[in-house]
Amino acid sequence: MSVLALDIGGTTLKAALVDAEVRSDLRSSAPTRRGDDVVADAAALLAGLRDQAPASDPPQAVGVVTAGTVDGDAGTVRHAANLGWRDLPLAALLAERLGLPVGLDHDVRVGAAAELQAGEAQGDMLFVALGTGVGAGVITGGRAQAGAAGAAGELGHMIVRPGGPLCACGQRGCLEALFSAEGLRRRLAEAGRAEVPDLAVLPHHPDPVSVAIWRDGVQALALALHNATMLLDPARIVLGGGLSGWGETLLRPLRADLAAGLAWRSPPELALAHHGPEAGLHGAALLARNQLADTPLADVAHGGTARRPAAKP
Amino acid sequence: MSVLALDIGGTTLKAALVDAEVRSDLRSSAPTRRGDDVVADAAALLAGLRDQAPASDPPQAVGVVTAGTVDGDAGTVRHAANLGWRDLPLAALLAERLGLPVGLDHDVRVGAAAELQAGEAQGDMLFVALGTGVGAGVITGGRAQAGAAGAAGELGHMIVRPGGPLCACGQRGCLEALFSAEGLRRRLAEAGRAEVPDLAVLPHHPDPVSVAIWRDGVQALALALHNATMLLDPARIVLGGGLSGWGETLLRPLRADLAAGLAWRSPPELALAHHGPEAGLHGAALLARNQLADTPLADVAHGGTARRPAAKP
Repeated sequence: MSVLALDIGGTTLKAALVDAEVRSDLRSSAPTRRGDDVVADAAALLAGLRDQAPASDPPQAVGVVTAGTVDGDAGTVRHAANLGWRDLPLAALLAERLGLPVGLDHDVRVGAAAELQAGEAQGDMLFVALGTGVGAGVITGGRAQAGAAGAAGELGHMIVRPGGPLCACGQRGCLEALFSAEGLRRRLAEAGRAEVPDLAVLPHHPDPVSVAIWRDGVQALALALHNATMLLDPARIVLGGGLSGWGETLLRPLRADLAAGLAWRSPPELALAHHGPEAGLHGAALLARNQLADTPLADVAHGGTARRPAAKP
Repeated sequence: MSVLALDIGGTTLKAALVDAEVRSDLRSSAPTRRGDDVVADAAALLAGLRDQAPASDPPQAVGVVTAGTVDGDAGTVRHAANLGWRDLPLAALLAERLGLPVGLDHDVRVGAAAELQAGEAQGDMLFVALGTGVGAGVITGGRAQAGAAGAAGELGHMIVRPGGPLCACGQRGCLEALFSAEGLRRRLAEAGRAEVPDLAVLPHHPDPVSVAIWRDGVQALALALHNATMLLDPARIVLGGGLSGWGETLLRPLRADLAAGLAWRSPPELALAHHGPEAGLHGAALLARNQLADTPLADVAHGGTARRPAAKP
């Protein structure tokens, strides 16, 4: 049985027709516009994929993930500044246009659930999406946590350098101002590196100032992970998002910094995301399957629940 | 139906005989020694209270809370440095000596469950115990979280001032080095305040250097709470432990600092613990009742679970 998955990113809409084994067979994408245009583009992308599905296995449900503050139970995006959305009933709008049940939730939170399902069973895990900004999916006791107002996981706005560089959010010294695609570009420009290098090659750039800015960012990330470890004691921290493409070049110094900062406990396992930058899209597929009560993945609920912890006595 | 509750603190053992309404009628305490002596003293305190109970309502179970790394399901203290314990089967030892079922768990985690039960239902809450050190009970999705290795809630060892003062734990710039009874005393002594003032009057001390050290500590606490808010989005942060006795003198500047640091979201509610410095003892009583399957509090499991969240569809 197939489903449709959609990841609404800040720059790109990514959609896929996904078969029973959660492989993505058929894909489609479009640049992200703003406001109602995004809804129209999303519906068109999904309808296009639906119409290309084999007649013997038409998609039965849709899963949609997006950044912003999302109320998964209500199917509503409360607020997504960069999309120009406020209190948008996105699930209902897409369900009406496609004639299929639509599940909606937060991209990183659901990406965390997808990673939890892909890895070994880990009741306590942190999924960190490193991209234009930085967000985290917090898994405690086997559940992806949304927080009281749907705003949990804002790892990028933990303050790791009090009085440090100004963040786009208005705070000073946020992790995101020191280590994110946007933050690194801004710091490079401020250091007079008018020709900001391709971020993919930044760690190996011949200019030592540029490399030092990257290395400083890695230390800031290590401190944020230190503090998250103290509070949550995750078994595992998983890195996804575009910047996780640095792979071992990032993991090696990050592991060293994290271990060096911890005086009395061992660090959690640090690994790259199983789904790479596509954790959100895989999470959307899980959400879609959750709309179908008769599938074994129905336990993946709104809110990104992937596994219920064993009942306590 | 009555139960026995015991809170094993770093300086004092506190025990109580608690009746059905979770009031503590009969109390007993002793200084905390080390190693096997603590077990002997604990058994003696509890036996003394048991023998004083009215013959019509003898205690039916025991709940014990302690600092350190605690495996509640196994009834074992894995490690408690200041008590000299490692892999101690404390629940079994006390059950044998008292002839009653014994529940064991971590003091702050269970204190958080007691606060959760005392307040309005709040699925996402942080309970912060401010005493000799600083610990937190993390409630997410209605459950007190222990983390992967039973080490969640180490708010006191989040680094809030990179390169800052040395903490007793070996790290630099921990919250606990800046704002805890031990940390404040050390900073006052280092500032040449050989006559360290009574901490109760520190905020109003005539010496401006002493007051500045206190105010600096409050800012460090606000930053730790900022970072915990970003990660967990709690509806409510509740302050307990001895230092919460400062009451509004502490809450007022702390609320102001927390609100000033948050650029784009409102702060969580900040309040004093319902049980004051006795949250741990109340949590121990809940644990004891959990040993008795036929009470309405049986849902308060090992691990400090206080309420299960509603099942998701």
